[in-house]
Order: sequence, then structure tokens, then C-alpha cells
Amino acid sequence: MKAACFDKSNLKYVVKEIEKPGIQKQTDAIVKMMYTTICGTDLHILKGDVPEVPDGCVLGHEGIGRIEQLGSEVSNLKIGDVVIVSCITSCGKCKYCSTNCQSHCEDGGWIFGHLINGTHSEYLRVPHATNSLHKIDPKKGFENYVLISDIFPTSYEIGVLNGRIKEGDVVTIIGAGPIGLAGLMTAKQINPKKIIMIDLDRSRLDFAKEHGATDIVCATGEEAIKEIMKITNNEGSNVVIEAIGTKFTFDLAQKIVSTAGHIAIVGVFGESVEFNLQDLWIKNITLTTGLVNANSSLELIENINKNKIPFEKLISHKFNFEDIEKAFDVFKNAKDNKTLKVLIKFPE
Amino acid sequence: MKAACFDKSNLKYVVKEIEKPGIQKQTDAIVKMMYTTICGTDLHILKGDVPEVPDGCVLGHEGIGRIEQLGSEVSNLKIGDVVIVSCITSCGKCKYCSTNCQSHCEDGGWIFGHLINGTHSEYLRVPHATNSLHKIDPKKGFENYVLISDIFPTSYEIGVLNGRIKEGDVVTIIGAGPIGLAGLMTAKQINPKKIIMIDLDRSRLDFAKEHGATDIVCATGEEAIKEIMKITNNEGSNVVIEAIGTKFTFDLAQKIVSTAGHIAIVGVFGESVEFNLQDLWIKNITLTTGLVNANSSLELIENINKNKIPFEKLISHKFNFEDIEKAFDVFKNAKDNKTLKVLIKFPE
Repeated sequence: MKAACFDKSNLKYVVKEIEKPGIQKQTDAIVKMMYTTICGTDLHILKGDVPEVPDGCVLGHEGIGRIEQLGSEVSNLKIGDVVIVSCITSCGKCKYCSTNCQSHCEDGGWIFGHLINGTHSEYLRVPHATNSLHKIDPKKGFENYVLISDIFPTSYEIGVLNGRIKEGDVVTIIGAGPIGLAGLMTAKQINPKKIIMIDLDRSRLDFAKEHGATDIVCATGEEAIKEIMKITNNEGSNVVIEAIGTKFTFDLAQKIVSTAGHIAIVGVFGESVEFNLQDLWIKNITLTTGLVNANSSLELIENINKNKIPFEKLISHKFNFEDIEKAFDVFKNAKDNKTLKVLIKFPE
Repeated sequence: MKAACFDKSNLKYVVKEIEKPGIQKQTDAIVKMMYTTICGTDLHILKGDVPEVPDGCVLGHEGIGRIEQLGSEVSNLKIGDVVIVSCITSCGKCKYCSTNCQSHCEDGGWIFGHLINGTHSEYLRVPHATNSLHKIDPKKGFENYVLISDIFPTSYEIGVLNGRIKEGDVVTIIGAGPIGLAGLMTAKQINPKKIIMIDLDRSRLDFAKEHGATDIVCATGEEAIKEIMKITNNEGSNVVIEAIGTKFTFDLAQKIVSTAGHIAIVGVFGESVEFNLQDLWIKNITLTTGLVNANSSLELIENINKNKIPFEKLISHKFNFEDIEKAFDVFKNAKDNKTLKVLIKFPE
């Protein structure tokens, strides 16, 4: 079968023939992939930022496919089912799974395209298939569901739910990339009073405005703080979703959060930040971090089925699997070419 | 009447005669003070760390007293009632009070001994008396209730409740001063598996051990981390209550918190800290900060009434009001003389 493999010593990504996977444990499934996409994390891996990824590893942790083979212990799925591959595999039994923190499953978590072969491949072995695949009965075509593998649960769980957004809140999202925009779309369902999007890319802010942002701020640092304070009558934002992951955007987050507010960290950080506890100790704030648990997947599938969220708008480009290297190039230069998510279709 | 007043230019505290307060608004009460105590915050003010405190201000935000006069709009209290003076005054109506965040009441919050005259005085004017005084029907003498003005609600709300301690958790409390020890006593009610106390003062750790700590760590920095990791089988602590407020103790907190754990900041910080988001973004942690809301006061009063918590053990020294300057000296040198809280009794 064809798969895109990480050439670790040259930091390249090459499509080649590798052996088709088979069932290893009776809790596994083998999925024939139909669609996949590329995540910012895949780009990080290709830059060498995630050293634990082995040489030759197939990347990707998002996708839709059809079940081709099932281990004997998987009873909730059938051969032929079309499924969402969750970016988080979970055993369902360990202390983390049993407290709804599947991201840290003791026999799973984020392993696709990280510790084991991922979804950029014609066939995929899925451990703990019972909890890690979600059958779909698509009302809007299969392809939108690929956004439920990772990006929508991440934005919704780690941004919107961790941020405890309530009706009437002022919400600010720092970063109008796909994750920030998915946060916007899911936050909107809760009817906050305002959703303010901050980014330096005007076209992404325009997109945000079309999809529910009440205010947009095309600025950073002191200028952004000034604008937010003006929009919020100097009260700051009840919820700040940080969807970038730098010391500058963290600083912005801590300076615009209101008294009794929430900072939900969704961004992936590569460095420490300066945290102004001398100002914040007294402000009764809550700050959360997290890797997605993907335990909101069923709720999000319902949102697709009921046409509640315009998921499809986040897919800006489509490629065939044979052009995956080109898809990476387009995704890597996303800001120059108005790319959000790229859909990759496997041969039937 | 006699009151202890802040001499701002000399950073001194002097007992002198000042005018007795009267009702200013019909929501006020005038309380004849029976007991008060000293908080670490009072020491900060006397060092000049809290610039907004006006010259001449009577300090103190904790106390027990008897109601002498009541405004016409206070209907839940009678003249002669013995009451706890909460360190937080709250209007009960503003957006913060109505969301149970009384610490930031728009017409109150922490104002005693901060923005208006406090409890180190024979008589006290209490704004919004309806919500800011709690009548007691003492089963164990009046004096222990003075610990419910501030220290116990602070430890309980900002440490134990914000830290979401559950039965079976491993809890670590950094700092075995009065706030840390009150945290220990209230945490113990929830039956955590372990409560580890960290401090550099051996006698305070011994006290902690006598009152429910399962483990004590007399170390700091790397050595403390090593000990905690040994005690927790390298998993870290589910809940870390930071009750000191320095960059070193914050660093310790962030390095010993477990995956999916909670850091509850109770310490008062005077400087920013380095926050290791490069390690913590993926760990699904929650961090909280806060000034006490004092909305757990009634629950804590029940704990005194039912003898559930040995509050009285935290009162190490007793003074008469005329010796308040001596009481400050003893409290200031607390670590040298095994002082926890000092009780100050007013003349009858």
C-alpha cells in the first residue's frame, strides 16, 4: 500500500510503498482510509520539533475510513462501517479514561502519527477500536466529518468548555487559524454577548466576521490590549481562548482577561512564559491547559447531522492522496494562500 | 475610643484615641469589637507593600463583636447579636455578588483595614451588614470564630475548593503557615489519600503531622521535587495548594502537579513567575487564583459547632488589645517563636 513516511534524518516526507497493517490485538480494527487532512502538529514534526516520532513513521491523526477488518473483541462496529478516526485512542478502562481524560490514556492517547503509524496511509491499524472510532451515518457527505478527528473537539473541549463560556459572556479568541475559527463556530452555539477575534491576518479576520465574530482586532501587544479594553468598557474578556502558543500571545491573554475570568490555553507552547501572578493572584481567574480528550465527538457529530455548524467552510482546499506533498506545501504557507484545512482524498 | 492606626510616613502602627464611628448608610452596622487577630497582609501593609492604604487607617479585617447599632435596612440582625466580621463586605446585588464572587463586590470586597477603617479598634462600622456579618450561637466559646473572618474561608475556598480535592487524591500543600495549616484541616474532611505538607520549619511540619498530614517534606527546590516524586510514585500530586507566594514555590508547584491535576494559588505574589507552558500545555492542568469570597462562612461555622475541625489549635498566643504592638512583634517573628495566629481581646 502507499503511505507518506517521515524521513527523520532529512526532515522530509515521502510517499512510498510499505507493508499493509494487520490486526495485532483483538481490540484492533483495520480501516481503509477515505479522507485525511494535515494538522499544524504534522508541520512541527517535519521541522524536527517532536523528537519522539520514529524514523519512517506515517504521520497524520485525522481521517475518515471504512472498516475492513475487526479484532474479535470489537463488538460495537461492523466491517463496512464508515468511521471517524479519533486523534485520541483510548482503552476506556485506565484511571485517565475512567475520569474522562482520554488524552492521557495509559495505553493510548495521541499515538497516531506520533508513536505509531498514522492516517496518511491507504490503510490504518486502530488500537482500542471500540472507543477510538465513531461510526457515522452521513447526512452531509463524508468529508466534513474529518474535522471531528481533532480540530473541532480540540477547540470545543480545550477552548470553549474549559473556558466555561456562558450565555452573555464576552469571549476573545487569540488566533484566527483553523483551531481559533473552530472555537468561534462552537462558542457561537452558547450565545456569548461578544466574540472578539484577534489575528494579524486580515483575510482570516474577515472569515471570522462572516462566521459569527462580533468584533475583530487586527493588532498585537499593547495596541490589541487597548482595542480589547475599549470594546469591553475596560472590564476585559470573561473568557480568553489562546490558540497560538507564544509568550506574546500568552501575555496578551493574561492582560485582557477580566476579574473572575477564564484563560483557556489551546496553543501548543515551545517555551516558558512570564506569568503576572503579582496582578492575577487577586483576580480570581482560572487557567486551563490540555490535549484534546475527543470525548465530545458524538455531540459534534450531532452538530454536523443537524446542520448547526458550517464545518465545510473550514475546508479550503482539496487534494488527491498522490498529491499529499503538494498539500503540505499549501498548508505550510497557509497565511499566504488563504488556506484553512486541506482535505486529502484517497483512491477508492 | 482606642484604635491602632497606620502611620504611613513612618511605617509604624500606633494605638491612639480616634472618633467612634457612626451609621453612615442604613445598610451599616456598628459593632463593639470583642476579638480580633493579625493577618500576614497587615504585616505587608506595615512594610509599605500596599500603597492604597490611607495614612491613619485602622488595620485588621478579622474579628468577633457585638452589634451596638443597626441601620434601618438591616433586618437579619439585632442589637446585641454576637457576630463574625467577614473580611469581605458584599452588597449582595452587583454582578460579582450575584455570581458568588463577593471578593470583587462593586461596593465592597476587601475594604476593612485596606480602604476603610478595620477591626483593630474598639468599634467598627460595617457596610452592607446584612451580608458581611454572620451571627453566631457559640458552642465552643466566641474566640475560635475569629478564624472564620478570613483564614479558614481563604484556605478552604481558594485552596481546597478551587483545587477540587476529591476523596482519594494526593494533595500537597506548600507552606505550613496558618493558611497552609487551615488548608490541611479543611482538606482532611474530604478524605484525600495523602496530604503532603512542605515547609522549611520543622516545628510547623510537626504540627501538620499531628493534625492530619500523611507526609511532611522539610526541603525546597529540587530536593523537595525528588521527595514528592518518591512519595507519589513519580505521578506527582493531584492537587497542589501554593500557600506562600514566591517564584520558587510557584516553580515547585508546577513541577509536582500531576497530569490532569490542579494548582490552587493561595499565596499573595509580589512578582511575576516563570510558567513552564512548554511542559504543561499538554498536561490538562487547571490553575486558579483568588481572593476569598467568604461565601463558605456558614459551612465553616457548622464545622466549629459540630467540633469537626480543631480550629482552636491554630491560636498559639493571646494578647489584650492594649498590647497589640507586642502582638504584632510576636506575629512578625512567627517562625522563631512557633506563632500561628495571635488572638487579641478587647476590653469588655
